[in-house]
Amino acid sequence: MKKILDYIKEIKPVDTSNDQQVQKKLDSLTKPPGSLGRLEEIVKDFARGSANSAPKIQKKTIFVMAGDHGVAESGVSAFPAEVTPQMVLNFLNGGAAINVLARHSGCETKIVDMGVKSDFQNPTGLIDRKIGHGTKNIVDGPAMTEEETVKAVMAGIRLAEEAANDGSDIIGTGEMGIANTTPATAIFCALLGFSPRDITGSGTGLDEKGISRKAEVIQKALKKNEPFGSPLETLMKLGGFEIAGLVGLILGGAKMNVPVVVDGFISTAAAVVAMEAAPSVRRKLFFAHLSNEKGHRMVLEKLDVKPILDFEMRLGEGTGAALAISVIDASLKIFNEMATFESAGVSDAV
Amino acid sequence: MKKILDYIKEIKPVDTSNDQQVQKKLDSLTKPPGSLGRLEEIVKDFARGSANSAPKIQKKTIFVMAGDHGVAESGVSAFPAEVTPQMVLNFLNGGAAINVLARHSGCETKIVDMGVKSDFQNPTGLIDRKIGHGTKNIVDGPAMTEEETVKAVMAGIRLAEEAANDGSDIIGTGEMGIANTTPATAIFCALLGFSPRDITGSGTGLDEKGISRKAEVIQKALKKNEPFGSPLETLMKLGGFEIAGLVGLILGGAKMNVPVVVDGFISTAAAVVAMEAAPSVRRKLFFAHLSNEKGHRMVLEKLDVKPILDFEMRLGEGTGAALAISVIDASLKIFNEMATFESAGVSDAV
Repeated sequence: MKKILDYIKEIKPVDTSNDQQVQKKLDSLTKPPGSLGRLEEIVKDFARGSANSAPKIQKKTIFVMAGDHGVAESGVSAFPAEVTPQMVLNFLNGGAAINVLARHSGCETKIVDMGVKSDFQNPTGLIDRKIGHGTKNIVDGPAMTEEETVKAVMAGIRLAEEAANDGSDIIGTGEMGIANTTPATAIFCALLGFSPRDITGSGTGLDEKGISRKAEVIQKALKKNEPFGSPLETLMKLGGFEIAGLVGLILGGAKMNVPVVVDGFISTAAAVVAMEAAPSVRRKLFFAHLSNEKGHRMVLEKLDVKPILDFEMRLGEGTGAALAISVIDASLKIFNEMATFESAGVSDAV
Repeated sequence: MKKILDYIKEIKPVDTSNDQQVQKKLDSLTKPPGSLGRLEEIVKDFARGSANSAPKIQKKTIFVMAGDHGVAESGVSAFPAEVTPQMVLNFLNGGAAINVLARHSGCETKIVDMGVKSDFQNPTGLIDRKIGHGTKNIVDGPAMTEEETVKAVMAGIRLAEEAANDGSDIIGTGEMGIANTTPATAIFCALLGFSPRDITGSGTGLDEKGISRKAEVIQKALKKNEPFGSPLETLMKLGGFEIAGLVGLILGGAKMNVPVVVDGFISTAAAVVAMEAAPSVRRKLFFAHLSNEKGHRMVLEKLDVKPILDFEMRLGEGTGAALAISVIDASLKIFNEMATFESAGVSDAV
């Protein structure tokens, strides 16, 4: 894990040196001070996270990372594991929800195979970072080896760096992996002290009985893999290839001062690993939305973060990130495109 | 008021005949059923409101209606009344928040002079529906005459009809009028039974003392104008020209089956008048956002409506409507652009 830990040392805290300048400009715009509420907060957070006194968004990229999970064998999902590669093809063909919403928000989508079980025949447009053909079942032991974990996280880091070098001002996280609410929930339990009983939810649509069985599977996996050690070791033991890739994406974005928009339940698990391993990452993140997956509210409350949207969505793929990026984009446009009291000849408050 | 009451009779209730067809299509898309939460609810509401089994959004229009208020003399605003025409010019020049957000959401903006006190010299692009040079001060008696009220509401109705005939699939409401949180608050008190003390807020930025004075002014205006009679008579006595115009816009949209997105505090006052006068309007409306103006939460709770966004905004102009229209637009794109399980060859739930 040394390679990742060395990289983390290079991540700088958010830059607050431009706070006054940014606030002054916000207050010069033709609106009562603070009257755009959250949009103004987003501008300030974005300026800090991007270490830029004149922040703007010209290029937006969402990564959808896919992986399969050995624990799918334990019957924790309403959908069969074959759906992972089917959905990857759907992403590549532009027919999935994330494609529609990314187009809506003007985001480029990059589809990454981090560890889908099957091989693709005609993967036009697919970014191949396959670490393995699905993880091992966490009820039997660690999901990944240390080597796999490092490879997966470093792959995410490099993708974030490439996106930054390619001009992306903001990165969104997305994922696809049948059964992946199970490792995500296990990570929340291991790193934040929740009990599976309290935060295990229905994923893509389990009934009450299915949720109970899933919580038992998670409890079993936690028992089997204890003690967890460091956040990165916890990731190795419980996480999936796509979750590890997202951890890297978040670390890489933070290092490059490109704010990362964390999608929903699964992406939050990656964010928790990244924040526990590298606390300065935290204020370079936006949390896109409150997922309808049980447990997300408790997790976000524990993290003391306020998501941008609350649409009771529970799809993943980066769909929440796409919608939140549109709001962040709008906020930066407010900052960059509005007239000032002076330029527009509008009288200020009496 | 007969002209308006006759018009209201032509408004049909929402059309629920396509509910099953719309739900079936939503469930055929490559996502777990219901997993897009609010977006799916929006699609269903939009299909009902537009009486269309294949709803789509191709043209979006936001009306920003401006008017002045006699009650501004009573010192109820942090900004001087001259700001109303200054901001109208700012709208026409594209430098205001609503311009930025409407461009972001792909909406056309139409700026309407419903009753600004001063006359414009160079009103390129301004739609002139000026009913008068500001309303009368409501502490001294009715804001408008019956003739003015009918003219203002009918002007809004015609603008909505023209927009519908011109291809707009959705209409957003916006307004500008220094002091207009005062008549809006008075309308909420008169029609929904609130007390000024409980729901009077800071508007564009009054301090505590200013808010107390404003609440007293509203109390005085309510006393002076009681009894209020019908919703439209209440509008006449308390409302402004731009609020009356928005009432018309809402009625006209409802008649034409073009869903209307109600912006914030002021627009909600217009919506309350419209819904009290014509209950079938209600389910053709979307409430854009929870405003940070004190009282809006209580009003929306009393109306039992759930706004789409909560960004603690309190600017008006249609800024919340612009952002919410983007979400509604995204929802309809989900409905129209996603692949189905069958077309994408994705396995359904086991």
